[in-house]
Amino acid sequence: MFFSGQTKLKLPVQRFSVDYKIIGNNKEEAYAKAKDICVEQTAEFPEELVPQGVISDNILGRIENFRNINDNTFVARISYAVDSAAGELTQLLNVIFGNISIKPGIRVENINITPELAEKFKGPRFGTNGLRGILDVKDRPLLFTALKPMGVPAKELAEIAYKFAIGGIDIIKDDHGLSNQPFCDFEERVKLCAAAVEKANRETGNKSIYMPNITGPHSEIVSRAKKAKELGAGGLLISPGLTGFDVIREIADNDDINLPIMGHPAFLGSYVFGENGISHKALFGQIMRLAGADGTIYPNFGGRFSFTVQECESIVEGATEYMEGLKPIFPCPAGGMTLESIPQSLKVYGKNVVFLVGGGLFKHGDDLIESSRYFRKIIE
Amino acid sequence: MFFSGQTKLKLPVQRFSVDYKIIGNNKEEAYAKAKDICVEQTAEFPEELVPQGVISDNILGRIENFRNINDNTFVARISYAVDSAAGELTQLLNVIFGNISIKPGIRVENINITPELAEKFKGPRFGTNGLRGILDVKDRPLLFTALKPMGVPAKELAEIAYKFAIGGIDIIKDDHGLSNQPFCDFEERVKLCAAAVEKANRETGNKSIYMPNITGPHSEIVSRAKKAKELGAGGLLISPGLTGFDVIREIADNDDINLPIMGHPAFLGSYVFGENGISHKALFGQIMRLAGADGTIYPNFGGRFSFTVQECESIVEGATEYMEGLKPIFPCPAGGMTLESIPQSLKVYGKNVVFLVGGGLFKHGDDLIESSRYFRKIIE
Repeated sequence: MFFSGQTKLKLPVQRFSVDYKIIGNNKEEAYAKAKDICVEQTAEFPEELVPQGVISDNILGRIENFRNINDNTFVARISYAVDSAAGELTQLLNVIFGNISIKPGIRVENINITPELAEKFKGPRFGTNGLRGILDVKDRPLLFTALKPMGVPAKELAEIAYKFAIGGIDIIKDDHGLSNQPFCDFEERVKLCAAAVEKANRETGNKSIYMPNITGPHSEIVSRAKKAKELGAGGLLISPGLTGFDVIREIADNDDINLPIMGHPAFLGSYVFGENGISHKALFGQIMRLAGADGTIYPNFGGRFSFTVQECESIVEGATEYMEGLKPIFPCPAGGMTLESIPQSLKVYGKNVVFLVGGGLFKHGDDLIESSRYFRKIIE
Repeated sequence: MFFSGQTKLKLPVQRFSVDYKIIGNNKEEAYAKAKDICVEQTAEFPEELVPQGVISDNILGRIENFRNINDNTFVARISYAVDSAAGELTQLLNVIFGNISIKPGIRVENINITPELAEKFKGPRFGTNGLRGILDVKDRPLLFTALKPMGVPAKELAEIAYKFAIGGIDIIKDDHGLSNQPFCDFEERVKLCAAAVEKANRETGNKSIYMPNITGPHSEIVSRAKKAKELGAGGLLISPGLTGFDVIREIADNDDINLPIMGHPAFLGSYVFGENGISHKALFGQIMRLAGADGTIYPNFGGRFSFTVQECESIVEGATEYMEGLKPIFPCPAGGMTLESIPQSLKVYGKNVVFLVGGGLFKHGDDLIESSRYFRKIIE
């Protein structure tokens, strides 16, 4: 009526799919919600007016599977045209959960990408094996800690970094709240901390790395990544909840930067609470990996946050299960972990894990080198 | 113990504050949560080990006020050092809600910025008066619609844009799902649609504008904004849930681009559901405005989404109440609005509103020019 029905859409249309958990009073209601998702996430147009034929058959989401988990919880697998994502991570996420983020009772459980998407979104540059190679650590869990607290001058953070590295911590990152404060300048901090870790490496023969936080203004993130590389950083920390996920992809794909990336969960937590949102697996596992993080930081069970063992295991699944050839990435449980909790976590995670202990190392005793060595000893 | 207690923090320390709604079984529990926020959002460090003196007194969040709303709901006003935000919107949002986004039962209700922050974050370039000036519309609500559905070629979208403009719609935007798909190229679309609206303006004497969606890859957003400007676009649509809020600031502050911006809520909805998150007022009102959007799009009450009248009114509050001199911005209720629902909405919003009717205009009848004129007539 309004349109000729023409389209430049190429046939046959490749499709990817998303599994949504849908809450409904009954099957009919939940199925109607699934049908609504098909339209809302694509044409966003009165369905009866969508040009019939190539467009209605291919642009609209399609329910590939619909099943109930219990009387009011259902799972719908909905497929979409790969081209609707425009080869852009922003638009892919928009198709997956853009407008329906505003509708109650819909949760992204699992994302099923296609070989075409894996071609476009290459995911992590290093992945688990690549990061092990950089650190020269074959088969134990990796040790990860953070420089803090905010307010301390860069020089003292560098002294701490040196002690961590001497004690055998593999990855020493900025606390995610250190950016470019007037009292802790980015360049000065990166320069001093990278040099401190390098000095320790010369003394120990280890290959520890320093990972500054480059989360910052849109126009400065890439230049901070390059500056960090130039100053000797061995990796980068990014909070995609603050910068957008595509920043990780941009930096992971950059051959000049060529550094491993850890994704931080700041500002992302609200997605995983409640019946609307994104599952732990899809958000902290699949999306972080698709964006190109080599490790995904999240609050471990039993710490000062609220994730369950099962939720943490689902993140491991998203981080490591087969995903069209994308490299597996490291789960990095964190968030109030103490050295005492490590043995229990080892049982859950096995060896392919990065344990992030921040405050816990400081709490363990006055001698940071000794505390770091003790951390390493428990792991080994 | 670990640190000298030195800091480069300048005294006296300017502070901004955030009102958090906190859920707790009793006052003691909720107060403990508030104290935890003070540490988690700043030092993220065992409190007893934070260097005493300038750092402990100023870097840690401070409870300025604590009151109960009912037996298990409390509001804490917590202040933070302005410098902890590093003059960066990403870091400001991190201090406001980074890590505690992962803790249940904490919700940002209201953000109280300071003159120093308003100096750094200038907010909207145009605001309500500026946008009225561009459109030459003194005192009626503005009319806003969207080009859709996905799959239709740019040429046909441009024909639709022409009809909308002839019919008197003030702002004609891309549907937020149109980015740079192989079947609807960004540049071709912007060129054709901007030209179509300009042609209509020459015929009507109106000053309608076309607003393309520039949400896209990190490295391309600014260049798409510039290209859009060059091709005659009159404004820009951005979904900060996909790109990060700082993209809006970057573009709003750019003198060469100099175009009004509408912020779209895609991928942001999960923040406003449930007891963890950000209030409608703070997210769609205050944060959009602080970032620099001139209008904030959100689902109106009574449409196909679930916001209440009260929630919509709170967005208007965040968009317009005094905010240290930042210009007020337009609430843009949308989301399944029909022409029939306009009179009721007029009662709630008054004149300072932008009504976004997309599918509703197509549904109203076969003649888009007539439907647009009818929309305008109801408004006037």
